[in-house]
Amino acid sequence: MDKIFRHIEQNLDDSIETLFELVRQPSISAQRIGFDKAPQLVAAVLERYGFDAEVLHPPNDGLPSVYGYASASPEAFRRACEASVNAHRADIAPPTLLLYTHYDVQPVDPLHLWDTAPFEPTRKADRFYGRGMSDDKGNIAARLAVIKAFQDEWGGLPCNVKFFAEGEEESGSPNLGEILKEHGWKLTADACIWEGGGRTAQNKPLIYLGLKGVLAVELAVESLSGDAHSSYATVLPSAPWRLLDALSTIKDTSNDRVLIQGFYDDVKAPTAPEEEALSKLPDDSELWRSTFGTDAFVNDLPDDELPLNHLFMPTANIAGLTAGYQGEGMKTVLPAEAVAKMDFRLVRDMDPDDVFSKLRAHLDSYGFNDVQLKLIGAVRPYKTDMMAPWPQLVMRCAAEIYDAEPVVYPTMAGSGPMHEFGELLGIPIASAGIDHPSHQIHAPNENIARDDFVLGAKHIARVMQRFAAGM
Amino acid sequence: MDKIFRHIEQNLDDSIETLFELVRQPSISAQRIGFDKAPQLVAAVLERYGFDAEVLHPPNDGLPSVYGYASASPEAFRRACEASVNAHRADIAPPTLLLYTHYDVQPVDPLHLWDTAPFEPTRKADRFYGRGMSDDKGNIAARLAVIKAFQDEWGGLPCNVKFFAEGEEESGSPNLGEILKEHGWKLTADACIWEGGGRTAQNKPLIYLGLKGVLAVELAVESLSGDAHSSYATVLPSAPWRLLDALSTIKDTSNDRVLIQGFYDDVKAPTAPEEEALSKLPDDSELWRSTFGTDAFVNDLPDDELPLNHLFMPTANIAGLTAGYQGEGMKTVLPAEAVAKMDFRLVRDMDPDDVFSKLRAHLDSYGFNDVQLKLIGAVRPYKTDMMAPWPQLVMRCAAEIYDAEPVVYPTMAGSGPMHEFGELLGIPIASAGIDHPSHQIHAPNENIARDDFVLGAKHIARVMQRFAAGM
Repeated sequence: MDKIFRHIEQNLDDSIETLFELVRQPSISAQRIGFDKAPQLVAAVLERYGFDAEVLHPPNDGLPSVYGYASASPEAFRRACEASVNAHRADIAPPTLLLYTHYDVQPVDPLHLWDTAPFEPTRKADRFYGRGMSDDKGNIAARLAVIKAFQDEWGGLPCNVKFFAEGEEESGSPNLGEILKEHGWKLTADACIWEGGGRTAQNKPLIYLGLKGVLAVELAVESLSGDAHSSYATVLPSAPWRLLDALSTIKDTSNDRVLIQGFYDDVKAPTAPEEEALSKLPDDSELWRSTFGTDAFVNDLPDDELPLNHLFMPTANIAGLTAGYQGEGMKTVLPAEAVAKMDFRLVRDMDPDDVFSKLRAHLDSYGFNDVQLKLIGAVRPYKTDMMAPWPQLVMRCAAEIYDAEPVVYPTMAGSGPMHEFGELLGIPIASAGIDHPSHQIHAPNENIARDDFVLGAKHIARVMQRFAAGM
Repeated sequence: MDKIFRHIEQNLDDSIETLFELVRQPSISAQRIGFDKAPQLVAAVLERYGFDAEVLHPPNDGLPSVYGYASASPEAFRRACEASVNAHRADIAPPTLLLYTHYDVQPVDPLHLWDTAPFEPTRKADRFYGRGMSDDKGNIAARLAVIKAFQDEWGGLPCNVKFFAEGEEESGSPNLGEILKEHGWKLTADACIWEGGGRTAQNKPLIYLGLKGVLAVELAVESLSGDAHSSYATVLPSAPWRLLDALSTIKDTSNDRVLIQGFYDDVKAPTAPEEEALSKLPDDSELWRSTFGTDAFVNDLPDDELPLNHLFMPTANIAGLTAGYQGEGMKTVLPAEAVAKMDFRLVRDMDPDDVFSKLRAHLDSYGFNDVQLKLIGAVRPYKTDMMAPWPQLVMRCAAEIYDAEPVVYPTMAGSGPMHEFGELLGIPIASAGIDHPSHQIHAPNENIARDDFVLGAKHIARVMQRFAAGM
């Protein structure tokens, strides 16, 4: 494996050139920018790295994903087994690894806060700047660096590799289910490395094993056929007051408890290993206080209860409020309409469709039949069992490469389409990546540090070798 | 007087041309649009109609008002007296009439609901469309039509006329008090005709003798130094939820009762003449139902209690709500800030400064010291005694011109700076105008109907003549 690790180091310039090539091509899914060329570019890069690549279009006007397949070479498979003293396995067929990534990126605004142009990759000392440089084109390029190392040093891949690059992850993966309905059979695998993960602020290896789901809805009240002069507030019903009444039944803000009947039915307490992992998570409380300029947390949570709440509890968030006049000064208007956008983060076993039904029933039971409820988006939660062999392998390899015990998040607080692969295709999932809090993902001046790229690639290389050798 | 009335009819096209000239010039005080030219245009038009005009700037960056003065002609004064068989008065000095109007207009949004461009006056059959066409440039033009008629037919005005056109009425007259502090001595008069009034939906003459006050405020919560990803809703405080909590303490929506302590202290029951006037008001319930597309009124008020509530009760209205993402689809954001715009309509004897203090104390008493409260505007309420000679004259003239008993509103539900003139300058006030519910004032497709313009002008002409003649 030393040759593999050395290859990753010594060929870093080539790997970064591939990364720059990907970053140069915009691919903002929320704004559908760059998709006339981006999928073809990703497919061409995969082909160059030895994959049979294919652009997978959803059966609608959604943005395509890109898929690549490369078979294991018998020689590399044998060397992988030898490297783990598992040569007795070299007579069976090599296993298949799925690499999940996405090639779409977040919008770049506010543009004026960027020090360099987001789609003109720029090196400054040991960091490389540009939109997608870390999230998630950095992961694509780091994985390809591993592929190249095995090909050059071992004459091929130690296991079969399926490379999946989604095109709508940053937009909530609205069409991934449709793509998998048609092409899912190609994506079956024995294990999956998710995007994300890497290092914590304290430079410990970071692995996560799940993602929350999310239900996004719009609540609208239309109380009048048109806005009225506010002097009519004496007699006409008010859409904003009505919406406020409805919203205030959804959550008891005094204890941050969601009041929708049955909302917490599927919420589980952490398992014993999860409890232990939680206790080892870094204390982010000071970081959050300074980053978000707040003294107190929700429900006056003490610092040591933050991780449990952050990772194992669902939310009811108001993402937007709109009614009436919002400009400078005053317009004395009685608004005919009021709208709230809400998102509910859902933990494993919660079902966004079920929560949507419960929310509708909740509103009706309080007499808010007049509140219109619209489904904007739904992502299902997923979490891999911490004690399963696959995440345990990924953790062991991380401890070796980073020379530190990994910090394991049983789930992230954010959301992503893990459910489609983990639950529907039944593939065990763990993340391994190149991320670090200093990378400013989703923000201006997104970047990647050289060391994160190299370490992340080495980690995946080690995982691939041990995976091929039978873990 | 027949010649005067005929002149108003026969020269309607010229009057409408003056109206169009005023409407073409935007003058949106809330957005400070058009005030580089609007005051000068109004002054130039007044000069053209024989006034000595002057632009009155407040001693700050507020928007100016326009003032014009024209003396009575002895000959016209004599004819006015003769017309009322009051020739014995022709040896004394003619009295002075103040005409209150405003030349600023409401914002035009939502622009897409206009059928014609708001600042391109358009005629369709017997209606004229454009922002300000009725409120209040229609009143300005109708009064000028009367001035012109007297000048052309009687060789001058029967009384001294002070023409006042405010520039910030639609923004709550924030600087009128300042202007009157410096220029109030010019505006003293024996009586004042207010803007507004005209005809009811049933085409009966409509006069009102008072205006509610209004307190406009902004409530803002800033819970974070910047927006956060909504996955942090598990731990970070939410500005929208906090604002909702604060707002929900302000009103009990189940009975529409404002919960601010002492809010109703100065609210008085109607006097006996006011009770009688109330009982004669048209039943607007069906009109309101169809106009605003609603089945039920606030607090399920029965139809016959609507006028009392509408005219004699204060309100707590949410005029605007703003937080987070308001565009298409979803952005999963935890908003750092949430803002509500509120206006409180105040009945006579309520003091906006007092209500503002009570609101601040209310928020503090509920622990909402973090809710920032900003004063946006304050207008004091005012009401003229129904039985005073001046309103009685305006009513008598209306009965004659419209050939129907006038509908008298002891006060309007809306607001305006009547207090400054009625209370501070001590001038008796009654309204006489060109308004009609079909004019869509403050809304898209504002318009004026030909007949309303003509009748309103004739009414004012008759009032001027009788006023000059000693009522």
